[in-house]
Amino acid sequence: MKGTPIDLNSDIGESFGAWRMGDDEGVLAHVTSANIACGFHAGDPDTMRRTVELAVRHDVAIGAHVSLPDLQGFGRREMKITANEAYALTLYQTGALAAFVRAAGRRLRHVKPHGALYNMAARDAALADAIAAAMRDFDAALVLVGLAGSELTRAGERAGLAVAHEAFADRRYEADGSLTPRREADAVIEDVDAAVAQALAIATRGEVTVREEGTIRLRADTICVHGDRPGAGAFAARLRAALAAAGISVTAVDGTKIST
Amino acid sequence: MKGTPIDLNSDIGESFGAWRMGDDEGVLAHVTSANIACGFHAGDPDTMRRTVELAVRHDVAIGAHVSLPDLQGFGRREMKITANEAYALTLYQTGALAAFVRAAGRRLRHVKPHGALYNMAARDAALADAIAAAMRDFDAALVLVGLAGSELTRAGERAGLAVAHEAFADRRYEADGSLTPRREADAVIEDVDAAVAQALAIATRGEVTVREEGTIRLRADTICVHGDRPGAGAFAARLRAALAAAGISVTAVDGTKIST
Amino acid sequence: MKGTPIDLNSDIGESFGAWRMGDDEGVLAHVTSANIACGFHAGDPDTMRRTVELAVRHDVAIGAHVSLPDLQGFGRREMKITANEAYALTLYQTGALAAFVRAAGRRLRHVKPHGALYNMAARDAALADAIAAAMRDFDAALVLVGLAGSELTRAGERAGLAVAHEAFADRRYEADGSLTPRREADAVIEDVDAAVAQALAIATRGEVTVREEGTIRLRADTICVHGDRPGAGAFAARLRAALAAAGISVTAVDGTKIST
Amino acid sequence: MKGTPIDLNSDIGESFGAWRMGDDEGVLAHVTSANIACGFHAGDPDTMRRTVELAVRHDVAIGAHVSLPDLQGFGRREMKITANEAYALTLYQTGALAAFVRAAGRRLRHVKPHGALYNMAARDAALADAIAAAMRDFDAALVLVGLAGSELTRAGERAGLAVAHEAFADRRYEADGSLTPRREADAVIEDVDAAVAQALAIATRGEVTVREEGTIRLRADTICVHGDRPGAGAFAARLRAALAAAGISVTAVDGTKIST
Repeated sequence: MKGTPIDLNSDIGESFGAWRMGDDEGVLAHVTSANIACGFHAGDPDTMRRTVELAVRHDVAIGAHVSLPDLQGFGRREMKITANEAYALTLYQTGALAAFVRAAGRRLRHVKPHGALYNMAARDAALADAIAAAMRDFDAALVLVGLAGSELTRAGERAGLAVAHEAFADRRYEADGSLTPRREADAVIEDVDAAVAQALAIATRGEVTVREEGTIRLRADTICVHGDRPGAGAFAARLRAALAAAGISVTAVDGTKIST
Repeated sequence: MKGTPIDLNSDIGESFGAWRMGDDEGVLAHVTSANIACGFHAGDPDTMRRTVELAVRHDVAIGAHVSLPDLQGFGRREMKITANEAYALTLYQTGALAAFVRAAGRRLRHVKPHGALYNMAARDAALADAIAAAMRDFDAALVLVGLAGSELTRAGERAGLAVAHEAFADRRYEADGSLTPRREADAVIEDVDAAVAQALAIATRGEVTVREEGTIRLRADTICVHGDRPGAGAFAARLRAALAAAGISVTAVDGTKIST
Repeated sequence: MKGTPIDLNSDIGESFGAWRMGDDEGVLAHVTSANIACGFHAGDPDTMRRTVELAVRHDVAIGAHVSLPDLQGFGRREMKITANEAYALTLYQTGALAAFVRAAGRRLRHVKPHGALYNMAARDAALADAIAAAMRDFDAALVLVGLAGSELTRAGERAGLAVAHEAFADRRYEADGSLTPRREADAVIEDVDAAVAQALAIATRGEVTVREEGTIRLRADTICVHGDRPGAGAFAARLRAALAAAGISVTAVDGTKIST
Repeated sequence: MKGTPIDLNSDIGESFGAWRMGDDEGVLAHVTSANIACGFHAGDPDTMRRTVELAVRHDVAIGAHVSLPDLQGFGRREMKITANEAYALTLYQTGALAAFVRAAGRRLRHVKPHGALYNMAARDAALADAIAAAMRDFDAALVLVGLAGSELTRAGERAGLAVAHEAFADRRYEADGSLTPRREADAVIEDVDAAVAQALAIATRGEVTVREEGTIRLRADTICVHGDRPGAGAFAARLRAALAAAGISVTAVDGTKIST
């Protein structure tokens, strides 16, 4: 294998009570780390228990996918919260998920903010610092997963945490490195070949083509595979095979090997 | 000091959002351990953070006060949940509270089920076993606090946990050792002298007068002081002074010294 | 058409936020009345609005499917609530759903308690009376839909409401007319032919075969078609065709024609 | 009495479950209309029932105090919701509260958005139009209560609703007629005399002194008395007496008399 290894991560455990979402089993067969919902945008204690046990069986690195408190909006509606509130909700959800991981005999590896919280923290240094502080106060060995080159990854570095810069195979990028908002028609790259090509460009050359025109540099330690995408499992398999064919090693996020 | 030492515990952190409840500061000055609400019957991440910090400043032993998911009913309405659901909600809440305790540089000492969950687990061995299993899977050094001589304390013993048998200064007892239900007129002992006298009888002689007539034997490692009682702080002070005057040592629940 | 006409009802609008449930469109093409979730076990304001508009397009009678407050448990976990609480939650949910119906230019026709509340009210006259009182205080022309021959239908009659006795095509019955609890292996009649046969026996002869053995008499004004059943739309179509073939008129619950 | 009559309104029913807030009884003795929480920022079905009955006993005009779904944040944290979401949550809450009013033999008179929703709708015409449309679709005779001279009152006028422009006795104003944000130190006028003076200036001269300097014109049909202010009842009594002494008639908001 040549070049820098890369992690494939997926958001799982997004069922809630009687409602099902995502193809967790299908995706877990192909990714190397999993971000598990903690009850604020999806997930409930029973779902979290089952999902952690599933992730353990697939031997992937396990992270807490912490969110704003908004079940109805699936954590995708921005809320004006204070830095103190961001600290407390990160600590609460991280602790809750970590308890299931510990009961399953493993250790929580990372934390990734979800949805609106992820996007807000990518722009807002104070929120991002609060999230990073909660992680450090809980376990300084946790890896912070955030949008590549954003305020969130910078906050992780300021806090002394290992940081995994995240890129997306199937989301469009703007010239400033932010994601094209979901309200735009071409925010999601539906075409599988195009999404795989974008992931390869990121993993092998460290660059991505942006919406307007041209390419930008993008450091990526991990690439996100959306589990709610139709055929998510098959997409993950294609992506992993393409990375392997390109000689890229796919391995879990490991805090001890990431230079911060 | 003569005889067995006893712990005084209180339920705190029962505010929620903009709403305040209880005199946490007043009570914490006099008790030796605190059960902190975890967001299911009261408490929210911000309240939990403040309450843990307050408990740390008062140097009391900290426990998770885990509940059925029922904010509107304050966790006092029984719900038919399965043993699996009891396991998962105990693990979730224990982990969430433990995260704040860990961030504050301390370690979670105990878990006490709240309200309807406490009463259901006192009667139902399967629920009680599930709660004890969640505690053991999270941290085998945790102390389980439950109604003295109930299915809950027996479950803790079966799970190999340290167990603190709990008695109440201001709740009436039935002949079978259960608490007189709150719907009964005399369920709560309003009179301060009578409540202090009951606590003294429990702590010094290991016995309590029951509602109908006569006394029963009652082992108590910890006595509960209700923080939402009017004048809770003053009551706690009176109780502690009375115990001291009777030569009873008042110290925190300590798992390593409780014979199980 | 011969004999008493019968209504076919279905529980719809049971999606929540980003989560989907049921084949509402498929079922609405074949039933004559719809019970719409009101946000307590499923449904949210946006889902309720869309579902009411869908029901209006299919020109079915619209009812409020009121529930215990338990999203995670889908309203299927019994909770010990008081009669006052049952009154208030029925009024709240009925009013909320009725507002969407009114905005769509229609009038709410009926109320049907959901899940655990339905079963509790079938047994508990005080709860049942509270539900009926809330309906009468809101709109005395509402039809109460409840388990045939239960405390719930009796409470509706006591309150002077029109009452629709409900029977189930695909649920097993006990000798006392109650439904076999879902925890039993044969609680649900999976076989389509058997379920259609049970519905026909109820609609044409007013009788149903019970789990142990033998048949009991059963008055039914409406038969429930579960929308979360696999192939629910096709099942509803089959059922309606079978009733038509047997000469049974299928029409919406109409309070003005039900003798109470 | 000379000049234009004015309404005094207060936000009540803001308890939730076991938690109490506000001096509803004290305030209701002196105001002419009441905005009752609908379960999204405060209130629950039981609290709503009791509060409506209390308002009926005091014979005040009753309105729905509709909010963003945020119990923990008391509806004071802005959330990015769509106009469709604003429509649906307004309709849901208005219908729920109206059901209790109807069961009590009265009719809902008005709707007032709460907290962050109030402030967002004061600035955002699309949100404001959605709120006004939900009100009109529910009952075209409802009065919309909104910040004087804001997008919210303009939306009510566009929808053909009666509109009550609201002013505040104890909130500071900016030069553009908006309220000084609560995060500013002098956002709330704590001094009772100053607050009464501001209300008198608004009611008698239609003007208010702004934070920086100078005065602005302000139309007010109703003045808000905050029920969670310390001594809210006494403050309401003082305010009402001062208005009476100035010859201002204090009467409930009445949609049929407001020129829109």
